[in-house]
Amino acid sequence: MHDLLILSRRAADYQRLIAAARLPDLHVIASADADVSAADRFEMVLGEPSLVRTALARLTGMKWLQSTWAGVEPLLDPSLRRDYILTNARGVFGPQMSEYVFGYMIAHERKVFEKYAAQQQGRWDPAPPGMLRGKQIGLLGVGSIGASLAATAKHFGMRVKGYTRGSEGCADVDTYFHGDDRIRFAADLDYLVSVMPNTAGTRHLVDAALLAALPPRAVFINPGRGSVVDEGALVEALQSGRLAGAVLDVFEQEPLPADHIFWRLPNIVITSHTAAISFPDDIAPVFIDNYRRWIAGRPLRYQVDFVAGY
Amino acid sequence: MHDLLILSRRAADYQRLIAAARLPDLHVIASADADVSAADRFEMVLGEPSLVRTALARLTGMKWLQSTWAGVEPLLDPSLRRDYILTNARGVFGPQMSEYVFGYMIAHERKVFEKYAAQQQGRWDPAPPGMLRGKQIGLLGVGSIGASLAATAKHFGMRVKGYTRGSEGCADVDTYFHGDDRIRFAADLDYLVSVMPNTAGTRHLVDAALLAALPPRAVFINPGRGSVVDEGALVEALQSGRLAGAVLDVFEQEPLPADHIFWRLPNIVITSHTAAISFPDDIAPVFIDNYRRWIAGRPLRYQVDFVAGY
Repeated sequence: MHDLLILSRRAADYQRLIAAARLPDLHVIASADADVSAADRFEMVLGEPSLVRTALARLTGMKWLQSTWAGVEPLLDPSLRRDYILTNARGVFGPQMSEYVFGYMIAHERKVFEKYAAQQQGRWDPAPPGMLRGKQIGLLGVGSIGASLAATAKHFGMRVKGYTRGSEGCADVDTYFHGDDRIRFAADLDYLVSVMPNTAGTRHLVDAALLAALPPRAVFINPGRGSVVDEGALVEALQSGRLAGAVLDVFEQEPLPADHIFWRLPNIVITSHTAAISFPDDIAPVFIDNYRRWIAGRPLRYQVDFVAGY
Repeated sequence: MHDLLILSRRAADYQRLIAAARLPDLHVIASADADVSAADRFEMVLGEPSLVRTALARLTGMKWLQSTWAGVEPLLDPSLRRDYILTNARGVFGPQMSEYVFGYMIAHERKVFEKYAAQQQGRWDPAPPGMLRGKQIGLLGVGSIGASLAATAKHFGMRVKGYTRGSEGCADVDTYFHGDDRIRFAADLDYLVSVMPNTAGTRHLVDAALLAALPPRAVFINPGRGSVVDEGALVEALQSGRLAGAVLDVFEQEPLPADHIFWRLPNIVITSHTAAISFPDDIAPVFIDNYRRWIAGRPLRYQVDFVAGY
């Protein structure tokens, strides 16, 4: 028998979904908080990284942790133990990210906030909208999320540039760029979207040089990770008018501090880390598949390298 | 030689696009207002219906009018002459309508106006968003615009119901409904979208009975024609909470009068007839194709039946 601890604010949902899968030899305890009795007996944990971190010292029997999130930053602190297999949630956020990115891009084209303000004033506002069709999107990162964004971009008739370390596997990307070629990548973009993970190699990839290479009409959208952006350089680009706007879901510090200048910039939209949330309906199948692999002695999917950070 | 009058606020754009097509035997005069000299000499007109209506009595030689708009209501007044072939703009608005409808549906799922209000107050707002995926859209009318909406709905993983007079030609529609079956069509919809033309048969198709058949979570979106909606019944449904919201581009009277109650309802978005505008890049090819048909003696595409109204 394998003892599984579910540690999530949505533990009951996960328990129901896992029970429905009728997995063999599995005994499940579900908890919405980190204060679990006999924590040392659990061989495996399915949980939110921040909750698991709180309980980590007491989870002495844990050999495998399936994160319910894509981001596992709370567990990457070098002072924490790394004597277990960590798998994260991957391959499930593409559709949500697509709705987020394309919803806010259309909102920009159609000036929905300006039109809504006119409506509040009782003013008929026939100013014509723009369209995504024919515009160019640049994807910083073309993993499973980037591929999903590229497919939606093609559906809406956009041109697609992709920036990756080396891979060129997505047919919906028209042109690939790598390495030092960031500046040519940024030229002529209408939208720059970062879906890079938080690693040493991606830190401040969106810096003053990259932002300066964008045309002034461009909008930067970040549903990925805050560490990818040099926030000071972004503020400068927005304030000087060298960038038309930004839609930011993630930040170097979250929640975004109340005195941060981002709150006071007019050409910015802040979405408070809600671009893609972990729905148990999406994440439970990742655990279920990995559990079957675990009991069969096969390698787990989506293993995180503690050093690389993803 | 054929004399063409272009009568449009964007006449210069149309003239440039038509010149680039190097059509044979064509002499073009472009005007942005209806006060044209020797109006009687034009065999054909490419123009905005409202401008053409002003000049109609003087355009005595006109045998063919290509409307730059889809809607030709200004020319359907029974007191006006009908001794010419009227063709309208069709088959080009699907992509724009898709951006409009899906942009505002995602805005609803993600509560973008509420999140924007929180941002203005400097408040981090982690309230989780909804998704289009798995939701159900109902299309009132499945012509070329409806088919474009159905394709985008499928891209986002939605279920699609279609209501038509009889046609069932779109493979992206999961279930079709016709005639008296409006109530079964409306049941279980998350979004009801009207893309019906303005005809005697569609007048007040969205009435109290249809609105009452929608679930209270449903949102009604109308980028089609205002006459399709019983506005009094819509106000009642919104005020009583039997409908979650409405996104309205078109109205029985436009511009919407300043004292109209729609301006004061909280769960409504008003977009001032901008859902799909006539871009010369889209419309000029419709004229060019029809001109080639005209000189070859072949039937024109998109002929309007003055009695049916479309």
